[in-house]
Amino acid sequence: MQSPIDSPALAIVGGGQLARMMEQAAVSLAVPVHLLAEGPDVSAAQVNPATTVGDYRDLATLRGVAEGCAVVTFDHEHVPPEHLRALDAEGHACRPGPHALLFAQDKREMRERLTALGVPCPRWAPVSDAAGLDRFAADGDGYPVVVKTTRGGYDGKGVWVVEDAGAAAEVFAAGVPLIAEELVDFRRELSALAARSPSGQVATYPVVESKQENGICREVIAPAPGLDPERAAEAEMLAMRVAAELDVVGILAVELFETADGRILVNELAMRPHNTGHWTMDGAETSQFENHLRAVLDLPLGSPRARARWTVMVNILGGEVGHLYDAYPHVMARDPGLKVHLYGKAVKPGRKVGHVNVYGDDLDDLLARARHAAAWFEGRLDDDVDPDDEDRDDVDPDEWDRGSTGE
Amino acid sequence: MQSPIDSPALAIVGGGQLARMMEQAAVSLAVPVHLLAEGPDVSAAQVNPATTVGDYRDLATLRGVAEGCAVVTFDHEHVPPEHLRALDAEGHACRPGPHALLFAQDKREMRERLTALGVPCPRWAPVSDAAGLDRFAADGDGYPVVVKTTRGGYDGKGVWVVEDAGAAAEVFAAGVPLIAEELVDFRRELSALAARSPSGQVATYPVVESKQENGICREVIAPAPGLDPERAAEAEMLAMRVAAELDVVGILAVELFETADGRILVNELAMRPHNTGHWTMDGAETSQFENHLRAVLDLPLGSPRARARWTVMVNILGGEVGHLYDAYPHVMARDPGLKVHLYGKAVKPGRKVGHVNVYGDDLDDLLARARHAAAWFEGRLDDDVDPDDEDRDDVDPDEWDRGSTGE
Repeated sequence: MQSPIDSPALAIVGGGQLARMMEQAAVSLAVPVHLLAEGPDVSAAQVNPATTVGDYRDLATLRGVAEGCAVVTFDHEHVPPEHLRALDAEGHACRPGPHALLFAQDKREMRERLTALGVPCPRWAPVSDAAGLDRFAADGDGYPVVVKTTRGGYDGKGVWVVEDAGAAAEVFAAGVPLIAEELVDFRRELSALAARSPSGQVATYPVVESKQENGICREVIAPAPGLDPERAAEAEMLAMRVAAELDVVGILAVELFETADGRILVNELAMRPHNTGHWTMDGAETSQFENHLRAVLDLPLGSPRARARWTVMVNILGGEVGHLYDAYPHVMARDPGLKVHLYGKAVKPGRKVGHVNVYGDDLDDLLARARHAAAWFEGRLDDDVDPDDEDRDDVDPDEWDRGSTGE
Repeated sequence: MQSPIDSPALAIVGGGQLARMMEQAAVSLAVPVHLLAEGPDVSAAQVNPATTVGDYRDLATLRGVAEGCAVVTFDHEHVPPEHLRALDAEGHACRPGPHALLFAQDKREMRERLTALGVPCPRWAPVSDAAGLDRFAADGDGYPVVVKTTRGGYDGKGVWVVEDAGAAAEVFAAGVPLIAEELVDFRRELSALAARSPSGQVATYPVVESKQENGICREVIAPAPGLDPERAAEAEMLAMRVAAELDVVGILAVELFETADGRILVNELAMRPHNTGHWTMDGAETSQFENHLRAVLDLPLGSPRARARWTVMVNILGGEVGHLYDAYPHVMARDPGLKVHLYGKAVKPGRKVGHVNVYGDDLDDLLARARHAAAWFEGRLDDDVDPDDEDRDDVDPDEWDRGSTGE
């Protein structure tokens, strides 16, 4: 791809909203993007002129997109590792590389590696049958325990909380590789984001609190309210160390449990811009999307500092209303400081179709404003999210979901 | 154009950097953009998939681009008014409309209208020959005076400072319509930006100071340092009033002289996002590009408030260095807080190819950082722009150019 400023071109595999927001950041840096999209109208394809529609599982298709691009990066972690190795060998630097992505693709590999590094994780073990699961439960506090597929899912799911081994019988019968994990008594979920370049520079964003509902990220508060500064530093150091040890290039998101007894445990890893970093688009000096681009291009990283005391992000999920644009007059008139980011996606129930950011000094006010806007986009009233009903220092963990699906 | 969120589509005429930055803002709002570009590789065409290459002076071409778009807006003010009236009549709302754009297209119309409104302007008069120019000079303090073409330019220029009528002989002989204006003894140039929607909502940005060199905007400081709050309010009110009286829709930029004796006079009008508003991309709660889109789509306007005490913008002009990307490692490593916006334009001497923004509390530090980065992109050292050499409260007007070309 030609660049008037002699920038190397970047190939992005996957046409979701993460690629779309990377493209938006690429405009300011004047970095040409060649997109491999699942369809002609997907989120990122709508706003990028150099788009190939094709299957990321096909090596020839990947080669065609990488042609003329110095670097290949990703909207998701699903590209087959052998294809990434082939591209790498042909001179298209895959960032993150297949050796790093493995730990975001396979939960058993991730747990084994983090355990070997001494990184605190929930108690875990590979399991393949009911007897093994019973042994795992007996070694701890008994049931319930969490059962996870190591890669992808089974029957549309990848995580189960089971009360006894019988509840997992069907999954065992299917023969998919599984691990068991303790059901962590967590106080809340946190997320630590780091950007890392091939030359080893790392920038970490302030640690945030994320709230999941039904396995989907619902809202993020930056920085995590009331987080002990030592815990925050520990989480940032952990993200930096994992990024370096696993040789991650680009954004690494480390989803964390803060346990009831004050420990930090790693829940999941993601190696791409992450939903828990969308607040950075308006709340940080450099967005996670710009820093992902800078990292994979081996450019010096931008400042990850927060620009406001608090930034709140609330996701907009597909709801009752089909026409998101119809919500603009209300939400924009009500709140001139609200930042709206829609992904150009048609509404389907539960689908992430956008997010809103607000920033300022009064956290309760910000939560109320962002929740109201998201609710309005979703076609519901937000009586149920009155911030006065909620004491931020004493969150009921039963309200919270576990096993976020990330993104 | 189809929109998954049922947004109206927007046609943008002209493929320069202003259109490019509008497109970047349109990504977050998920507003589809159909671009009419001068060539396949111009700045805005590089980042927009729905682009028609053609001539904005051709009505059929304009019709083709407007087809399926609810609103037509502009990267520049050069579209023939009769074409705009035709599009308007066919149901494509032109915003700003031809009746407003006239006052950005024709300096005599602008001066007549502003004078009728009682808006303070430099002393001016239409002139068509040497005798008329001598009379204009004699009515004031004599020569030098400023001669301007009312529309476009002559021999590549549109503004001359002349010491006697003989110096304008060639222009008079060419028969182009001209006006004469007093040579204002200005202390500095200011700019007041307003966004106005068809339903009449107006938002004004903080008044900025702009520094011109050779008729090109070089740097902008937001807000204008040391500006009397009453003067600032007067300038904002003036922009609001002009926007309303002229029925401007979108961004209106009012370029102003602050005179040595403390008055505010209107220099030029522009009806589109403006170089003196580029600081808003990182320095305001809503960028001028987003507010231009919101205004022309008749959506409620976003907050124009500044996010930092000071924001400094410095333009990057084409200089010695052909490869702008090569400057990234230095400028990014030296200043992680610097925000870079390049336009994807090949370097030509004096051509605007990008800008940098920095924000913070220490104005001298910000000026030094932004000037250093721009100088580095331009392939020169910045010894000549040491902020310690300059007293911001006592700027030498001889350093400054007059008659900015806007954009």
